[in-house]
Amino acid sequence: MSRFFSGKFSSLVPYTPGEQPKDRQFIKLNTNESPFPPSEKAREAAAEAAEQLQLYPDPECRRLTEAVANMLGVRPDEVLLTNGSDEILNFAFMAYCDSTHPAVFPDITYGFYPVFAKINTVPYEEIPLREDFTIGVRDYLSLDKTIFIANPNAPTGITLSRADIEKILKSNPDTVVVVDEAYVDFGGESCVPLIRKYDNLLVTQTFSKSRSMAGARLGFGVGNRALIQDLNTIKYSTNPYNINAMTMAAGLGTLSDPDYTAANCRTVIENREYTTRALENLGFTLTDSRTNFVFATHPAFPGDSLYKKLRARGILIRHFTHPKIADYNRITIGSRAEMEVLVKTITELMEERK
Amino acid sequence: MSRFFSGKFSSLVPYTPGEQPKDRQFIKLNTNESPFPPSEKAREAAAEAAEQLQLYPDPECRRLTEAVANMLGVRPDEVLLTNGSDEILNFAFMAYCDSTHPAVFPDITYGFYPVFAKINTVPYEEIPLREDFTIGVRDYLSLDKTIFIANPNAPTGITLSRADIEKILKSNPDTVVVVDEAYVDFGGESCVPLIRKYDNLLVTQTFSKSRSMAGARLGFGVGNRALIQDLNTIKYSTNPYNINAMTMAAGLGTLSDPDYTAANCRTVIENREYTTRALENLGFTLTDSRTNFVFATHPAFPGDSLYKKLRARGILIRHFTHPKIADYNRITIGSRAEMEVLVKTITELMEERK
Repeated sequence: MSRFFSGKFSSLVPYTPGEQPKDRQFIKLNTNESPFPPSEKAREAAAEAAEQLQLYPDPECRRLTEAVANMLGVRPDEVLLTNGSDEILNFAFMAYCDSTHPAVFPDITYGFYPVFAKINTVPYEEIPLREDFTIGVRDYLSLDKTIFIANPNAPTGITLSRADIEKILKSNPDTVVVVDEAYVDFGGESCVPLIRKYDNLLVTQTFSKSRSMAGARLGFGVGNRALIQDLNTIKYSTNPYNINAMTMAAGLGTLSDPDYTAANCRTVIENREYTTRALENLGFTLTDSRTNFVFATHPAFPGDSLYKKLRARGILIRHFTHPKIADYNRITIGSRAEMEVLVKTITELMEERK
Repeated sequence: MSRFFSGKFSSLVPYTPGEQPKDRQFIKLNTNESPFPPSEKAREAAAEAAEQLQLYPDPECRRLTEAVANMLGVRPDEVLLTNGSDEILNFAFMAYCDSTHPAVFPDITYGFYPVFAKINTVPYEEIPLREDFTIGVRDYLSLDKTIFIANPNAPTGITLSRADIEKILKSNPDTVVVVDEAYVDFGGESCVPLIRKYDNLLVTQTFSKSRSMAGARLGFGVGNRALIQDLNTIKYSTNPYNINAMTMAAGLGTLSDPDYTAANCRTVIENREYTTRALENLGFTLTDSRTNFVFATHPAFPGDSLYKKLRARGILIRHFTHPKIADYNRITIGSRAEMEVLVKTITELMEERK
């Protein structure tokens, strides 16, 4: 830290992304990436856009915003595209949290929420998950605070029903409820259909997981027009050209190929079911995940130990040190072949212990 | 604005980017874009990166950071890459300005500085340019505030010498001086060689202008290691994957082709000299621009009127409404053919007025 760094950030601890080792080839099941390449239409469109990089991208992202709105069945002025969904989440902390509107979210959830709160110097409260790792809906009623809920939640993978989210929206009419649907395409129930009914609802989604575009950085927020206007004010006051021309083109290409995305999501779900059964057969307990990862624990195999042993064998999974989930690991659903190697390797590790 | 928008932003007026009309083809001389496509190596590298978009980009941007450091003759830990130079400028406002460290910058400069100040709720002061549109170095001595200087300045195009910047750095040892060198490659004198001598110096640059990559969004900051650490803390607390994989690849491709960039800069400078002489012959007064634009006024042709008449004839230039410069227009240097059309069109407009 320099001697010039503003005192308000003196205790700031940044977010730590999942490891991206460069020393050797791993089977990467640690950052919830898709095992499938982006749509061929995305790749072609991006390559074409690269020919004209000397021109600024359209700051309004008009064509892509319209395409996203069409996909969701909403109007373009109900959508804001961002540089990954991290950017729209940060915008929401900026726009809707301050000293009189603290943020509130589960104690076990996307690890970036407390970092967003700190960088924006807003107070926040973490509500413990219930014993079974579910979000207790009653804990979020009538809070009068700005609520952030990842649905499905991460790293647990567990989803809340739309009816449950609706209870939270109804009982907090004067504060914004942000529903982070990064993983919704793998079996969750989206709250996008509620945006006109509740003017306090902001839904965020991403192209990173189900659309194989983590490398392109494309996310978006969906909400009523006034919320999107607020968030546009933030965008045009920080980085008006937040989406580059190649990513915009790739996004359009991806949306023109919906069958490819749908087929990939089905395959991920099938591979998740395969992995779940196989790990259960090995004695693991898993949450009911509706995402592209599973969250698993074994009575005889500490989470950290499994993580390290798999890493030594060339398989990366994600381990979190938070004491409540230290016995667990989050394992991304890769290709069927990758999941078979995972299961085979864990089987061998367990035999070694006998 | 929604009823939920934080009160601290109630009077925020966002930045307005230059117009990007979609209704017809214009000769675009309004947003300081390069008339040349990106390096073929950039285009090929970007297209190749698009094949693997399912993977997150390297959050450390290791290879590209090393390449930028090599180009500048500094160490990789003295460089931070950002999503355009707007992002590094915003990070600097976040990191180095607060209620006890107000921001200060010229009254006529990059129009985003006051917006960055407002979005970060930091007080700021604007110091008037001198009559001749130069920055008065004495006005910036011993301010004990965080100073932002675009060098060359925009939209005037006028540059300060490195020796002048050094006076400002020396007399403000306890606050950061940000030198925004977006246009330095067209004839300015970079302050990068001073970063180890002055721990309070942050230099920012961009790939948007001289490197034909406005559409890719790539900028960077250069400063001593402690400053770069601060700014990395901000990055990892807002958007760790701020540079997408295609832009990273395009940046590497561009840096592997330095002759192409150098040749383009030479051509822009030649076209600037041609345009300057031609406009002077038509009775215009121009500042001594060291950028990829000229800043011009005519005693018999009000700035706004010239802007509108050129627009009607299919040529876009940039007009600013600030009363001190309302008689001027900023005209981007395009290709030789474009500048010849500009000169011919202005000549016709002046004949019509006779």
